[in-house]
Amino acid sequence: MSLLIVGSVAFDKIETPFGKTDRILGGAGTFIGLASSLLNVENGIVSVVGGDFPQSYLDLLQDNGTDISGIEVIKDGKTFFWEGKYHLDMNSRDTLATEVNVLENWTPNVPDHWKSPDVLMLGNLHPLVQSSVFDQIERPKLVILDTMNFWMDTAWDEVLNTIKKVDVLTINDEEARQLSKEFSLRKAAKVILEMGPKYLIIKKGEHGALLFHKDEVFFAPALPLEEVFDPTGAGDTFAGGYAAYLAKTQDYSFENMKRAIIYGSAMASFTVEKFGTERLAELTRDEIADRVKTFKSLTHFEMKA
Amino acid sequence: MSLLIVGSVAFDKIETPFGKTDRILGGAGTFIGLASSLLNVENGIVSVVGGDFPQSYLDLLQDNGTDISGIEVIKDGKTFFWEGKYHLDMNSRDTLATEVNVLENWTPNVPDHWKSPDVLMLGNLHPLVQSSVFDQIERPKLVILDTMNFWMDTAWDEVLNTIKKVDVLTINDEEARQLSKEFSLRKAAKVILEMGPKYLIIKKGEHGALLFHKDEVFFAPALPLEEVFDPTGAGDTFAGGYAAYLAKTQDYSFENMKRAIIYGSAMASFTVEKFGTERLAELTRDEIADRVKTFKSLTHFEMKA
Repeated sequence: MSLLIVGSVAFDKIETPFGKTDRILGGAGTFIGLASSLLNVENGIVSVVGGDFPQSYLDLLQDNGTDISGIEVIKDGKTFFWEGKYHLDMNSRDTLATEVNVLENWTPNVPDHWKSPDVLMLGNLHPLVQSSVFDQIERPKLVILDTMNFWMDTAWDEVLNTIKKVDVLTINDEEARQLSKEFSLRKAAKVILEMGPKYLIIKKGEHGALLFHKDEVFFAPALPLEEVFDPTGAGDTFAGGYAAYLAKTQDYSFENMKRAIIYGSAMASFTVEKFGTERLAELTRDEIADRVKTFKSLTHFEMKA
Repeated sequence: MSLLIVGSVAFDKIETPFGKTDRILGGAGTFIGLASSLLNVENGIVSVVGGDFPQSYLDLLQDNGTDISGIEVIKDGKTFFWEGKYHLDMNSRDTLATEVNVLENWTPNVPDHWKSPDVLMLGNLHPLVQSSVFDQIERPKLVILDTMNFWMDTAWDEVLNTIKKVDVLTINDEEARQLSKEFSLRKAAKVILEMGPKYLIIKKGEHGALLFHKDEVFFAPALPLEEVFDPTGAGDTFAGGYAAYLAKTQDYSFENMKRAIIYGSAMASFTVEKFGTERLAELTRDEIADRVKTFKSLTHFEMKA
């Protein structure tokens, strides 16, 4: 059970109605790695940071269980940096700064001991960067890919070529509409499942997530929380929990994907409780198990005979 | 098992991206009555219409199983009329016309044979009109009340006085925020459950519905549909299915309310398939049972041992 993660390891600077941070640990790869380690899954990150990236952040990832030998450090480069401010409703945000830095022109370099992972999770990066990984490794049992509207706007053909090669695509509702040119998510899913992926996950933030496969659909709600403190990383935690659960159980059936999505949702519901990776880094396996039970009681009902 | 419904019986004129109607049968009472009849529940509507209201609409309600003896006909009056146009996303709409007509200054008059219903469903009307019903009947086993932002804006104290007396309050997410002055729905629910109702249902349209009771919460998704043809009446069908299921089973526990909400959601998912009451009027019990199963498979998962 091994999960190879290709994704950003970065600095985030976040402002929410509850407060603001300096530069803290962020990036899709980071959240996915932490989520995987929490499920006891052998995982490694392929990424790049600059000389400004603190050793303590790399240690945090490693101490939690992530193999960081695939994280390149470019001594005279600067780490990817994102700064954003959330609106009062916590559903929308303004990007105040994006500094691509060392991620620009970067090509992933998969370490030799990661050439045959069970599951590959390609975090949101340029589609050509994502697909460059395929040439370096044996075909994993499952490939999961995340992408975003920015790449659809700027590299449409490359997005289409890359998602052809994956098993699971995870995008949000607006991206599903943009990719399919359909407004109804049910219709959008039909179109996208014709593009290559066998499974489609549409993330709807506080409104949960939908999993589509052939004519089947499964819905995982988001947990109604008293307070969403900081949504940053929730989507990546969700994807990480999902990917890690599948890598751990080695069962890639639709039935098992339902469980995987619930694990992802449960873990994401913790991430939003504090800034950045703070809550995830202190999370225990018992807390996860309890929250999965909460998700079950949230939607399960028994019909009378 | 009897359900008394107090609510509008009216004309709607609807435009959606898929087409438009002339004046057709509408009103909260109408949808609630049709939903109740579909579940074989003895139900009667207390309402008022004008001399312009076609006998064929009254016949339709009666033929489906609703007692219409409480629907007053004011020969020289005009029936309540609402005209609206839905936007492309089907989640927002413009009200083009509202003619209150005979509903203005109307006081409900409960027929003698409806003085002791098991369940009372108070559709969205002026809070003083709603509370005038309490003086006319024995306390039902369960009272469900729907209201809207318009009454919170114009009759705040009366809304508060009326919801004090009910068991279940059904409102949408924006109304829950307005009533509680809390943005988080979880916090809003806490505040509202202090105001009197023992149960709170927050309707989120295409994003499903939440049921709150003490510290418990249950979530029913909306069915992801290929096409939402006309959302008019979906919320009333939901409330009607919910109320009727409880009246039918005579079990007012939280566990049974979960089932009731699923029935309401299942029936509402049909209403949106055609204009107005069209789909509900032709619906069969087998179709409802099938759709309830679909709702179960949409959210149910089994954890591995």
